[in-house]
Amino acid sequence: MSVTAAKGFTAAGIAAGIKANGNPDLALVVNTGPRRAAAGVFTSNRVKAAPVLWSEQVLKSGQVSAVVLNSGGANACTGPKGFQDTHATAEKAAEVLGRGAIEVAVCSTGLIGVLLPMDKLLPGVETAAAQLSEHGGEKAAIAIKTTDTVHKTAVVTKGGWTVGGMAKGAGMLAPGLATMLVVLTTDAVVGSEALDQALRAATRTTFDRVDSDGCMSTNDTVLLLASGASEVTPEYAEFAEAVRAVCDDLGQQLIRDAEGASKDIRIEVVNAASEDDAVEVGRSIARNNLLKCAIHGEDPNWGRVLSAIGTTRAAFDPDRLNVAINGVWVCKNGGVGEDREKVDMRYREVHIVADLAAGSETATIWTNDLTADYVHENSAYSS
Amino acid sequence: MSVTAAKGFTAAGIAAGIKANGNPDLALVVNTGPRRAAAGVFTSNRVKAAPVLWSEQVLKSGQVSAVVLNSGGANACTGPKGFQDTHATAEKAAEVLGRGAIEVAVCSTGLIGVLLPMDKLLPGVETAAAQLSEHGGEKAAIAIKTTDTVHKTAVVTKGGWTVGGMAKGAGMLAPGLATMLVVLTTDAVVGSEALDQALRAATRTTFDRVDSDGCMSTNDTVLLLASGASEVTPEYAEFAEAVRAVCDDLGQQLIRDAEGASKDIRIEVVNAASEDDAVEVGRSIARNNLLKCAIHGEDPNWGRVLSAIGTTRAAFDPDRLNVAINGVWVCKNGGVGEDREKVDMRYREVHIVADLAAGSETATIWTNDLTADYVHENSAYSS
Repeated sequence: MSVTAAKGFTAAGIAAGIKANGNPDLALVVNTGPRRAAAGVFTSNRVKAAPVLWSEQVLKSGQVSAVVLNSGGANACTGPKGFQDTHATAEKAAEVLGRGAIEVAVCSTGLIGVLLPMDKLLPGVETAAAQLSEHGGEKAAIAIKTTDTVHKTAVVTKGGWTVGGMAKGAGMLAPGLATMLVVLTTDAVVGSEALDQALRAATRTTFDRVDSDGCMSTNDTVLLLASGASEVTPEYAEFAEAVRAVCDDLGQQLIRDAEGASKDIRIEVVNAASEDDAVEVGRSIARNNLLKCAIHGEDPNWGRVLSAIGTTRAAFDPDRLNVAINGVWVCKNGGVGEDREKVDMRYREVHIVADLAAGSETATIWTNDLTADYVHENSAYSS
Repeated sequence: MSVTAAKGFTAAGIAAGIKANGNPDLALVVNTGPRRAAAGVFTSNRVKAAPVLWSEQVLKSGQVSAVVLNSGGANACTGPKGFQDTHATAEKAAEVLGRGAIEVAVCSTGLIGVLLPMDKLLPGVETAAAQLSEHGGEKAAIAIKTTDTVHKTAVVTKGGWTVGGMAKGAGMLAPGLATMLVVLTTDAVVGSEALDQALRAATRTTFDRVDSDGCMSTNDTVLLLASGASEVTPEYAEFAEAVRAVCDDLGQQLIRDAEGASKDIRIEVVNAASEDDAVEVGRSIARNNLLKCAIHGEDPNWGRVLSAIGTTRAAFDPDRLNVAINGVWVCKNGGVGEDREKVDMRYREVHIVADLAAGSETATIWTNDLTADYVHENSAYSS
């Protein structure tokens, strides 16, 4: 399924030899048309990887024919040579596919500050092109994994048209997206402006609200390609909702596979004066290392929630704050509430509700706990 | 030494039974005069503990006769009862010492959201008062420890006058101060306005730049009490520098004792367009969990430094950034620099220089690595 669930797309995933361990590391997704409208959302990190700088240019035309994705190297902080390598990758795919290089987006993920082995990557593009298939979506999803333990795909099918996609990302999930590469495809007939609008609306409330460890990547990319092969033109609202649903599904999969996590934490901020306030408070709670450790220890330490709320600029009165953990209002009116012993934290999902008692807006942020396994994975990552 | 290094002060530290394990948990510091000028700096967290709300009121007069400090409970998020308990603590000390309650500051540290055992605390104040001594500074410093492995004191002596102090804090160190209680004393003749000015200037570049885990406490308090007992009136600049030096010394001790840390990381941001830019960049680097894990693994992963810089609003050109780790310029002009294999990371202190190439301002932020021990300490803290 994945990126080939929608009609008008082929994909492939192969081991090009970029990863030393021989695992799959190169994916190719091709839009076979008849239309080639596309939209993209990129990291807001000001230090952007070469493939992000390139793909931002590609997306300016609103047209994408193919996407080359590699794991095994981020091609970030690699200077002019890194940018040349991305350009050469697009040129190679364009040559093999008979398209213009400016229609080929490139995504990379892996270690920052290392040049890609172009002597393996370029032949890999040829090999992948030879294996393109309408059933290649799973293989493509597998080839973009880094520390992901599982590959991530999602599909929504409506009356005669489909939105599908794949994602990678397991750490460095943060605001303004994560080290996350996502390619979504649809066979609906949708122009690039509507794609852009739907994609931005979807990422704003899904990927943007997945905040695993507060670290923003240099490489985050979410692409949405439309082939028009279904010949169905959906209502905008229905289409946008399908895109949102696929993004939400993939976002949840990213959190569930976050590095070293043992708990998925859903932080629901309610009764905020504004949505911005709700998001700011949710993020502040999501990034509180002390709370994340407490949740790991199955400790309903609501004081750390209040302490995190207190660092924000959101509208609230400290004496009116309420906090529920897994349905138990452990904090009422800024002080001790129901008995914390009542909180059952044995399960993987933890649900925190922070009631600001300052309005009627709400937002939900997803994060995970902080564990010794996270420390282990990330202290040994590049060595 | 500690708070009794300066003349005109007595102190005591006892086990009042607030901590279940029977360790010392109550300290009393008394200014015996002849003067009682004082200044205070408090947490900028909007969720403030009862003792912070009380002590802020006390400090408005610029006069403090005594400070009661307890570990074993933060008295934060404890509602009106918590505030009454703080008030009763000040009243008890005032009664025993023959002062007004409004001249008694109160500091608390420990778990949030739990009422203090007043049946132990109030008799403890009487016991401590009976043990007040000009040599009680060490005992007071010991009684305010929570997860601190060592007690922290510092002293600077100038021509005829002294500034000394004690500090506690080992986690939750963050901007706008840490879960940090600090009492500084001096026998210099200095008015409350000059004390306030010197203390704010000192904390701004010392405690405020110690950022262990990005978590801001509800209880942070730094007090500076002046007895005038030396009868020496120092030059303001010399006095301010002595206060800064004591704060800097105590701040360094806090970082070295940070929970679970195996590395002390000095982040020096140079060639910034403004001091604010330098501080923002330094904090962003200090709070990057991925970098903190990498340093723990003795991995000079400069890509994570660039990635952290890229999330700030500071003025810089990504292609002109330089990063040195322990003296090796591993990143030059935004890309690969000297061989990372040259970086020796075997020692506890790690020195990161981030060169923004955008001006001439500088700032230094201290943090530590993120370890499995930190996770362990903080996942088991309240259970």
